[in-house]
Amino acid sequence: MLIRYSTSDLYQIYTHTFRKIADVKYASAVLQWDQETYLPPSGAVFRGQQIATLNEIAHQLFTESKTGDLLTELQSRHDLTPLQRNNVSLSLTDYNKLKKISPEFVKQLSKSISAAFHSWIEARKQNDFSVFKPLLGVLITLKQQEAAMLGYTHHPYNALMDEHEKGATVVMVDKVFAEIQPLLQNLLSQSQSLPTPDDSFLNQHFPKNKQWEWSLFIARRLGFDFDAGRQDISEHPFSTNFNSNDVRITTRIDENDFGNMTWSTIHEVGHALYEQGLPAGEYGLPSGEYASLSIHESQSRLWENCVGRSEAFWTYFFPELKKYFPEQFASVSLTEFVNGINKVKPSLIRTEADELTYHFHVMIRYELEKHLISGDLSVNEIPVYWNDLYKKLLNVDVPDDKNGCLQDVHWSHGSFGYFPTYSLGSFYAAQFWQKAKQDVPMLEQQMANNGDTQGLLTWLRTNIHAHGRQLTSEELCVSVTGSGLNSHSFIEYFTRKMNCL
Amino acid sequence: MLIRYSTSDLYQIYTHTFRKIADVKYASAVLQWDQETYLPPSGAVFRGQQIATLNEIAHQLFTESKTGDLLTELQSRHDLTPLQRNNVSLSLTDYNKLKKISPEFVKQLSKSISAAFHSWIEARKQNDFSVFKPLLGVLITLKQQEAAMLGYTHHPYNALMDEHEKGATVVMVDKVFAEIQPLLQNLLSQSQSLPTPDDSFLNQHFPKNKQWEWSLFIARRLGFDFDAGRQDISEHPFSTNFNSNDVRITTRIDENDFGNMTWSTIHEVGHALYEQGLPAGEYGLPSGEYASLSIHESQSRLWENCVGRSEAFWTYFFPELKKYFPEQFASVSLTEFVNGINKVKPSLIRTEADELTYHFHVMIRYELEKHLISGDLSVNEIPVYWNDLYKKLLNVDVPDDKNGCLQDVHWSHGSFGYFPTYSLGSFYAAQFWQKAKQDVPMLEQQMANNGDTQGLLTWLRTNIHAHGRQLTSEELCVSVTGSGLNSHSFIEYFTRKMNCL
Repeated sequence: MLIRYSTSDLYQIYTHTFRKIADVKYASAVLQWDQETYLPPSGAVFRGQQIATLNEIAHQLFTESKTGDLLTELQSRHDLTPLQRNNVSLSLTDYNKLKKISPEFVKQLSKSISAAFHSWIEARKQNDFSVFKPLLGVLITLKQQEAAMLGYTHHPYNALMDEHEKGATVVMVDKVFAEIQPLLQNLLSQSQSLPTPDDSFLNQHFPKNKQWEWSLFIARRLGFDFDAGRQDISEHPFSTNFNSNDVRITTRIDENDFGNMTWSTIHEVGHALYEQGLPAGEYGLPSGEYASLSIHESQSRLWENCVGRSEAFWTYFFPELKKYFPEQFASVSLTEFVNGINKVKPSLIRTEADELTYHFHVMIRYELEKHLISGDLSVNEIPVYWNDLYKKLLNVDVPDDKNGCLQDVHWSHGSFGYFPTYSLGSFYAAQFWQKAKQDVPMLEQQMANNGDTQGLLTWLRTNIHAHGRQLTSEELCVSVTGSGLNSHSFIEYFTRKMNCL
Repeated sequence: MLIRYSTSDLYQIYTHTFRKIADVKYASAVLQWDQETYLPPSGAVFRGQQIATLNEIAHQLFTESKTGDLLTELQSRHDLTPLQRNNVSLSLTDYNKLKKISPEFVKQLSKSISAAFHSWIEARKQNDFSVFKPLLGVLITLKQQEAAMLGYTHHPYNALMDEHEKGATVVMVDKVFAEIQPLLQNLLSQSQSLPTPDDSFLNQHFPKNKQWEWSLFIARRLGFDFDAGRQDISEHPFSTNFNSNDVRITTRIDENDFGNMTWSTIHEVGHALYEQGLPAGEYGLPSGEYASLSIHESQSRLWENCVGRSEAFWTYFFPELKKYFPEQFASVSLTEFVNGINKVKPSLIRTEADELTYHFHVMIRYELEKHLISGDLSVNEIPVYWNDLYKKLLNVDVPDDKNGCLQDVHWSHGSFGYFPTYSLGSFYAAQFWQKAKQDVPMLEQQMANNGDTQGLLTWLRTNIHAHGRQLTSEELCVSVTGSGLNSHSFIEYFTRKMNCL
């Protein structure tokens, strides 16, 4: 029957179908955003159910056989534009993958995630991993089942990583980490032999409302469009989006820690600028979606670190910052500030880690997840295994679960295979940053002179954001920088920074 | 096939199906709440589309023939409990009604509503009805089509009223209004012959944050459960709910008008207490839903007026209020305050009208809507017709559209047939209030002595809230007060108040 339709009519049906699915998916995202920002406590149970229903419906709509028929017919047409062909091909890949999972499983997983999230919150309150353990166990079992349903070669973790980062495998990530780990270790030793910069000025009292105003100022100055987005407060900072004209970030404010809010805001703004830069007209289609999670992280970490911890950036913004906190920074010089915010020190909390030791945090989680998903490691063993790895890789003693294996929200969201994208993203970021500085004359000078980051944003919009999901991470990296992922860029970037500071 | 299932299994399938539909409907409500509170401006277009998709899906799920088969089979079973039988019967009525409307129509209507809402906002900004007119015309045409699809006898407006108030007809409402109008007119003349109380103290400067704190205080004291709800700011106050554990109200604050926020908050709290009092375990089923809009309005107007404008209430709360605004009310006595807040004066804005003239505002809209839906009146004629009726019934001159036919949000929401429920609700409220005072000893004394409204709330919970939608408005009124709607209760209530003040 579909054969009777013209290609352009068929493509329109395709667009209509996928926009409808997107409507449901993004509606679920609104409910999740609300869950983490404004939901009254007693509303949690029904909310979990409502999110699960929407996820089930989105999955059902996607995996209906008529969706498959439509995509198959479209793929056989010869008069699609290259962009259309690419969209159809990506949607068909998604279809074939999702088809392997039943709507019931999606609903069950979604409900288990809501329950696990609340038990994680409770476990953190009680500072006791054993509170979270039973529901984490349930989630791990479900994720193992999911890997089995999706299918994989070599390692079940591959199936889960593939959901976040198409094509990522244990072999590939092991190789990247094996290569870079001794180099990072070496840089760490070097940095530890240098005099320790003072960063105590970050831990004075910074009133909440002033921090809030500062975060809005900095977000706006980095190019975040508040007509097409907003910032709110949540327990754990995140960014989300419901279309490229409604992109939301959250932050949290610790009155005794200036860094906590500032770099997490810049990080989330980095994510948000990417989403605000995706082509709005391609809503619901792969060409309107982000390329991959590692590319998403490349954006957040580029802004957070390459920009947000650079001397050029703070040359302009440190005097601005002093207007918000004149007393706190009265006796701090620009050099002291930049040195302080780049202090390298092995620590317990990933999100507060410096740029260098950050990757050890990621590697620890990656090792753990591989073994949890393969079944080599039981949930019971997590705390000990976690603490041992922190001792081994970072030489720190984990005092309790809150500062240990309970610190990240990811597992409670059922996100396994996500962490590696943080490191991959940082390595991509270093490559993009290097290239952007080559391509955009005066990039750092303009930042330093008048806080103007528009040159960088335009470069990212053109070279990365505009492409949506048309290229894979690696294709995008090659198209932008001339070569695939090369973690040496990160080492070079960091070595240069260390030598300059 | 259904015949093979046990009744209890079938009822479980029914529960599961209707909870799923409720999940989608309430998800749509979350998106609408967000639209009116936090949505960034550029997000409006896609949001309208997302809401429309959810409404379409909810409608599709409800009207699937398998839903009808399930309900029909269940209705034939003899071993349902009375509550179950009633639920099934009500759901079948809903099904047969909704079945007459296609999902496409629902989507089209929903999209037109989103567009009309934004054009209404714009028209208000420009204070120009002609901006809103074209899209209002579209909505009226759609509502006429809807009435035709639903079917009706005598008058198409009956079909639309029936959606808000089951069984309400033009004949019945005409009769109620025809009876009460001369009595109201008479009371109005009487009240105008009395000395005009001073209410100028309501229009001093009341700082925003203090008003906000006061609104939270009063909401909490009236029994609003902030663990199962919240209050936010919106352009137009409303209440909504996503289950009885997540009920939300909004308010707006005018720094130069104390009354604007206070009685709208008490009004919305009245709605919210009803929703928080519905049986949570009956989520998604008629027994977990409100009885009708007029009963909903009876709750809001009972709290707003019978309680919130009573001397007993303010005997306790006026001293509390003075703690929030000591300067503003320093020279105002309790008697002056109560007289002021009960001042009767024909005016332009419905939501700011006193208890008595309020009903003329409703009658004007009712007259207009009847003629718009029957096609006797065109959208072009609205402003003139509106202004004429205000002159005729209230003897006020409408200076512009903002203070005239652009004042209410309802039409932009596609709500035609809603307004009459405000008056019906007030009349029910007067009856309930009378009965509650008889049933609960010391009701007013406890309010006056220690601001305790728990006695009233418990009475409402038991007699009204707990029943969900098991009884119609009239059945409920009979079961609670011993007789059906009797607008004389309102006249008596108001006459007594007028004589006491």
